[in-house]
Amino acid sequence: MAEVQERLEAEELQQSLREAQELLRGKRMGELRAQLERMHPADIAHILEALPPEERLALWGLVKADRDGEILVEVSEAVRESLIASMDKSELVAAAETLEADELADIAGDLPPAVIEEVVRSLSAEEREQLRAALSFPEGSVGALMDFEYVTVREDVTLEAATRYLRRLDQLPSHTDQLFVVDRAEILKGTLPLARLIVSDLDRQVREVLVGEHLSLHPEDGAEDAASAFERYDLVSAPVLDATGKLIGRLTVDAVVDYIRQRSAESQLAEGGLSQEEDIFAPVADSFRNRWAWLAVNLVTAFVASRVIGVFEGAIAQLVALATLMPIVAGIGGNSGNQTTTMIVRALALGQIQGGTWMKLLAKEIGVALLNGVVWGSLLGGIAYALYGSVALGGVMALAMMLNLVLAAITGVGIPWLRVRFNRDPAAGSSVLLTAVTDSGGFFIFLGLATLFLV
Amino acid sequence: MAEVQERLEAEELQQSLREAQELLRGKRMGELRAQLERMHPADIAHILEALPPEERLALWGLVKADRDGEILVEVSEAVRESLIASMDKSELVAAAETLEADELADIAGDLPPAVIEEVVRSLSAEEREQLRAALSFPEGSVGALMDFEYVTVREDVTLEAATRYLRRLDQLPSHTDQLFVVDRAEILKGTLPLARLIVSDLDRQVREVLVGEHLSLHPEDGAEDAASAFERYDLVSAPVLDATGKLIGRLTVDAVVDYIRQRSAESQLAEGGLSQEEDIFAPVADSFRNRWAWLAVNLVTAFVASRVIGVFEGAIAQLVALATLMPIVAGIGGNSGNQTTTMIVRALALGQIQGGTWMKLLAKEIGVALLNGVVWGSLLGGIAYALYGSVALGGVMALAMMLNLVLAAITGVGIPWLRVRFNRDPAAGSSVLLTAVTDSGGFFIFLGLATLFLV
Repeated sequence: MAEVQERLEAEELQQSLREAQELLRGKRMGELRAQLERMHPADIAHILEALPPEERLALWGLVKADRDGEILVEVSEAVRESLIASMDKSELVAAAETLEADELADIAGDLPPAVIEEVVRSLSAEEREQLRAALSFPEGSVGALMDFEYVTVREDVTLEAATRYLRRLDQLPSHTDQLFVVDRAEILKGTLPLARLIVSDLDRQVREVLVGEHLSLHPEDGAEDAASAFERYDLVSAPVLDATGKLIGRLTVDAVVDYIRQRSAESQLAEGGLSQEEDIFAPVADSFRNRWAWLAVNLVTAFVASRVIGVFEGAIAQLVALATLMPIVAGIGGNSGNQTTTMIVRALALGQIQGGTWMKLLAKEIGVALLNGVVWGSLLGGIAYALYGSVALGGVMALAMMLNLVLAAITGVGIPWLRVRFNRDPAAGSSVLLTAVTDSGGFFIFLGLATLFLV
Repeated sequence: MAEVQERLEAEELQQSLREAQELLRGKRMGELRAQLERMHPADIAHILEALPPEERLALWGLVKADRDGEILVEVSEAVRESLIASMDKSELVAAAETLEADELADIAGDLPPAVIEEVVRSLSAEEREQLRAALSFPEGSVGALMDFEYVTVREDVTLEAATRYLRRLDQLPSHTDQLFVVDRAEILKGTLPLARLIVSDLDRQVREVLVGEHLSLHPEDGAEDAASAFERYDLVSAPVLDATGKLIGRLTVDAVVDYIRQRSAESQLAEGGLSQEEDIFAPVADSFRNRWAWLAVNLVTAFVASRVIGVFEGAIAQLVALATLMPIVAGIGGNSGNQTTTMIVRALALGQIQGGTWMKLLAKEIGVALLNGVVWGSLLGGIAYALYGSVALGGVMALAMMLNLVLAAITGVGIPWLRVRFNRDPAAGSSVLLTAVTDSGGFFIFLGLATLFLV
């Protein structure tokens, strides 16, 4: 039976982190080692991530070597790199050899090639094939998330015999909520939920109680689609089949949860302008490297907007109020366009937008833009009039806001539409692109109208 | 045994949506009704969400009345409102009566009070207590997510007896991966995983094979913490206990997955400036209502920034290039500060930041800001010099970028720090606040330096 490790609530986990830090600082290594031994690998991973570099490596040195592998699988990529860099080849090989094929595939990218080579040599032919399969599917596919720890039964045996067989296994793989019923050629015939096995008469045959209607995934399916299916049907596990219907793997809800969290983190980071997850204790130079690309893109768009203003320097010289008011026109376009794009990207992710829906969406968004234009345009136009005493300036302000809002609506629908048409991810970078259009467009519209009517 | 419904892959689901639309438009209601009957409630919910209002209500009318309840639970809130508005009181009561207490609690907020009252009258005392409990915990707590469909056993019976008891239940509640072992007073003693029950000798007593070390949740715990625990320990279900250790409910992974998705959607929407999930076919007025608050906040901050510029109108009148360059200074501060805040909000969510970490973070972020300032400041300073032929203008540009980047770093660390100190969600609205500071600050720094050194 598996060793039982503590399972901590959130507060207990933070408490453990504080204790670990105190023990480290007090050099009470024996006590700390004992504490670590009781802890779940995911919790040790958490503590490693929260410690500054020197303390992190000191604690890592106290972890028992046979647990290195499972912990490396759990930590974030940035921290994994720092831990791996502190280990020599033989330690890494020993750690990697404790892992299942699908776990090994998860960290293979971070291990030195020489380590992988040596570990592969120690694998059985079956495990080697599993590792090859897991590595052959791209990130974001079901194949990259699946594992190989499932239990199969034949349909022509009795539940009694099936139960006897299970009992010989001593322990079922985690997340075994159902057995997979296959024929001699490993073709999936159905599934047998444990809950059904337990409540059914043991004299019956597997074929009589199996569930024929089940969700089958294929390794090349998108992980996002699979996650939606798990969510829709409240699944704990699902079989993964090849094109011939042969069972080749299993997807479990814990892998799906990890994937969802990962995706949500990535989109959060991308929206905030970070290229990837950043170790909070990373050196300044590493942080700079993780951030410069987005800053550069934003600087280029800001520079373009600045050149648009440059074209109208003559108008501004005559009427300085334009310089004061122009950021408001540009800003509302960016904010309103982002609302449009956010709603559409979300609806796309949920599969709610069909071919014919786009024109309806565009019409609706232009409607919202016009309403916004009337409301906010007259408000700000009125304020501009009050500040500068010029009816014409107020009118230009109101009209420019209205037009930039319409431009924002068209761009806000257009960018995701174009990206979908050309099979690109509609979310990535949409906000930067949109703001580039509404900033430059906003300056151009406002200063252009001012040139026509005011100076 | 439960009716078996089709489980569709992502493409099959989109295919069903297209078919449903064709059948609706061809008025082939009989065929459509038959299609709907085979479908899983979550899939019908998906189709309802993707249809425009008239078609949505036409299809809703074809759904068998006894499935209304389970589908109302599955649809998004915006769409649920439109469906409920189309039903009369007796239909709503009939639909609500098909639901479990925890499901009823989920949609109670959208039902008219008269419907709730009538449904409550039809509940058993136990169900009424469950509904009361589910409604009494705030959104975002474990209590609001838990259900009441768990199976308990006593520790002094044999596995044989436990199995016989289960068989009498005919069907186990979904996501029953473990039984909860309780004493006479319903105090939790441990859990008995089905996988362990199946492989163990039936003569043994429950007490001998139960798992004593388990995660216990409390109804007032934060759902986010519970979700992290499910992720760390790869759980399918966990018991929920009151303060005395009495078992009062159960949290399952499907509720956790829904919660994670919901949270991630909400943060996406909030970042895009939408107050809540928006029905893509919502009338223009509804969309306006969902979006005006964020636009108003952004307009206020843009207006403040505009007044800061207004203070320096004299300087701009003398040197129009200032108006051209100032958005670049403001922009880079906003972008860089958002990178800082994004990283910190994420580390906070992962529990990686302790009391003592803040000063280290601030020092590091100022370091990154200085490096960014040297790199981008000299680049843009050089460009300003090239464009306008003034060394002093180039120098002011470079210095202003450097100072605004430092301001952004301090604000980017300071805003989440203040929010944590005052127990507020560090994520919500951070980006708007930050941009307000870096915009107004950027204009002030750049135009102020220009006034000192250039005009």
